[in-house]
Amino acid sequence: MSNHFGDRLFEAVKSKHTSLIVGLDPVYSRLPAAITSRREMNDEFDVDSAVDAIFDYCTQVLRIVAPIVPAVKINIAFFEKYLWQGIESYYALISEANELGLEVIGDVKRGDIGHTAEAYAAAHLENPEMAGLEDTLAPDAITINGFAGAEGIEPFADVATKQGKGVFVWVRSSNPGAAAIQDCACEDGQKVYEKIAEVVGEIGDKPERIGKAGYSNIGMVVGGTAPEATAALRKKYDKVWFLVPGYGSQGASAADCVRFLKHDGSGALINASRSIIYAYENPKYKEQFGDNWKKIIEQAVIDAKLDIAKAVQDAL
Amino acid sequence: MSNHFGDRLFEAVKSKHTSLIVGLDPVYSRLPAAITSRREMNDEFDVDSAVDAIFDYCTQVLRIVAPIVPAVKINIAFFEKYLWQGIESYYALISEANELGLEVIGDVKRGDIGHTAEAYAAAHLENPEMAGLEDTLAPDAITINGFAGAEGIEPFADVATKQGKGVFVWVRSSNPGAAAIQDCACEDGQKVYEKIAEVVGEIGDKPERIGKAGYSNIGMVVGGTAPEATAALRKKYDKVWFLVPGYGSQGASAADCVRFLKHDGSGALINASRSIIYAYENPKYKEQFGDNWKKIIEQAVIDAKLDIAKAVQDAL
Repeated sequence: MSNHFGDRLFEAVKSKHTSLIVGLDPVYSRLPAAITSRREMNDEFDVDSAVDAIFDYCTQVLRIVAPIVPAVKINIAFFEKYLWQGIESYYALISEANELGLEVIGDVKRGDIGHTAEAYAAAHLENPEMAGLEDTLAPDAITINGFAGAEGIEPFADVATKQGKGVFVWVRSSNPGAAAIQDCACEDGQKVYEKIAEVVGEIGDKPERIGKAGYSNIGMVVGGTAPEATAALRKKYDKVWFLVPGYGSQGASAADCVRFLKHDGSGALINASRSIIYAYENPKYKEQFGDNWKKIIEQAVIDAKLDIAKAVQDAL
Repeated sequence: MSNHFGDRLFEAVKSKHTSLIVGLDPVYSRLPAAITSRREMNDEFDVDSAVDAIFDYCTQVLRIVAPIVPAVKINIAFFEKYLWQGIESYYALISEANELGLEVIGDVKRGDIGHTAEAYAAAHLENPEMAGLEDTLAPDAITINGFAGAEGIEPFADVATKQGKGVFVWVRSSNPGAAAIQDCACEDGQKVYEKIAEVVGEIGDKPERIGKAGYSNIGMVVGGTAPEATAALRKKYDKVWFLVPGYGSQGASAADCVRFLKHDGSGALINASRSIIYAYENPKYKEQFGDNWKKIIEQAVIDAKLDIAKAVQDAL
């Protein structure tokens, strides 16, 4: 296995024939009844029961998706909600995903400067070597918030590079309110998100960060809902992996998302969370597969992969 | 005790006669030898030992500062570094500070939108009611990152308001690299940080968020190093509590920081972290008090309070 995150992603996307990744945003009340009806997991308001149910569900989802997608994105907020017990479960899940051969992205969106950024980077990117935590793994990459500029990005980038891991800096989100800030046009004609992209691009372009496949380990999170912005970013930052949220439940189409891909199909991870992990709530699937939620999740992944593959072909 | 965070701050600042608050950014290697030489706490590379030492130290600092400052700011990154065990310790420390009558600000800088923001808000602002976590308290307020705009702020603001708690949105940091993004002048003449301030100001100005003292529970984090920016923000947002980092080790003078205060001395919390909690590394204090680190921390707080009080008088 390569020691460069960009190379590992490149290989994983090639071998799974897709840019689709699955996001885990687990919410107890939406878990399959087959799990939450079990006696030891049936109490939403007992932290052990709730955390166990979520962990059980997530590990089963990982086993379903591991053979067919390159990576998973685990959203820490849904674990943090259960305080330290949730955090323990989050790290356990990273190990599970790692053993299954998945690249693991921790969606943590941490952001701060100096010593604080270093402490966050240690928590989220370094595999701990302390007694009592030796068996714990940190994810292969995390998302961070670049609002503080270079001093908020470099500490994470440096730890990631040293560890053979990666960072995706939040450059542009797709929620309407983000435009009031991220799309502000500055006097020099650049928008705010373009300024952040430029800082990220510069930090990521150092030789020690570039892998054999030509990609940096420092990527960008960019929402899939603005076609022109997408095309410009893809063209300008040819060494960058884009992490693209918003496909599926959040309104970006496959056609929108595949604009982030290069001609060889690499260069972007297209994330679907709720449209996959709650696919069993979808009447279309219910009708076809009944209560077989595992089969439904697998089918939803296959369908999403096909949807994306078609969009890639249409774009040629 | 008032059920409005802005009112509680107002009372606390009045009764402690200062805007100074103490920030806890604990790093094992800088703890007093009196703590790290104890057998059960002397191994930096054993998670139990390290977390115990940090917790012991922080609770002692809390007892020293509780009678003389209105609030403490606990930086979660330095706990998160010890994964779930650090997080458990972070919440335990919040309870300690609360019992000592301190307002507690969790410096967590979380930032995301929609469901994810709601999950973070639940973790960091709601006192958990789940079985197994009943005795745990969330802080009185947290810092958040407003990069995503209104949809990234409102979920936190709504939970905070419902819980009688507060939120400080990161508006402007004082690190040089931040200027490349936060100080960009937009076409309409406003800088990026002013745009964020405007979004925060609007969200905070709803009637249900304003307390009896005239303050909103939604505040702003603004670095103390830009005098003109400060004066303008103070004037424009008269219902806002400012959380001002950078006093002490990070280069903002008392004169810089007191510009955030109103004439009655309310309206800002001036945070000092390392200059207080590691004051025993300062040769000036060492000479005077030797190894008595507790006395030194107390004296450093008293000196900082005097420094700020003088600056307030000079500004009249």
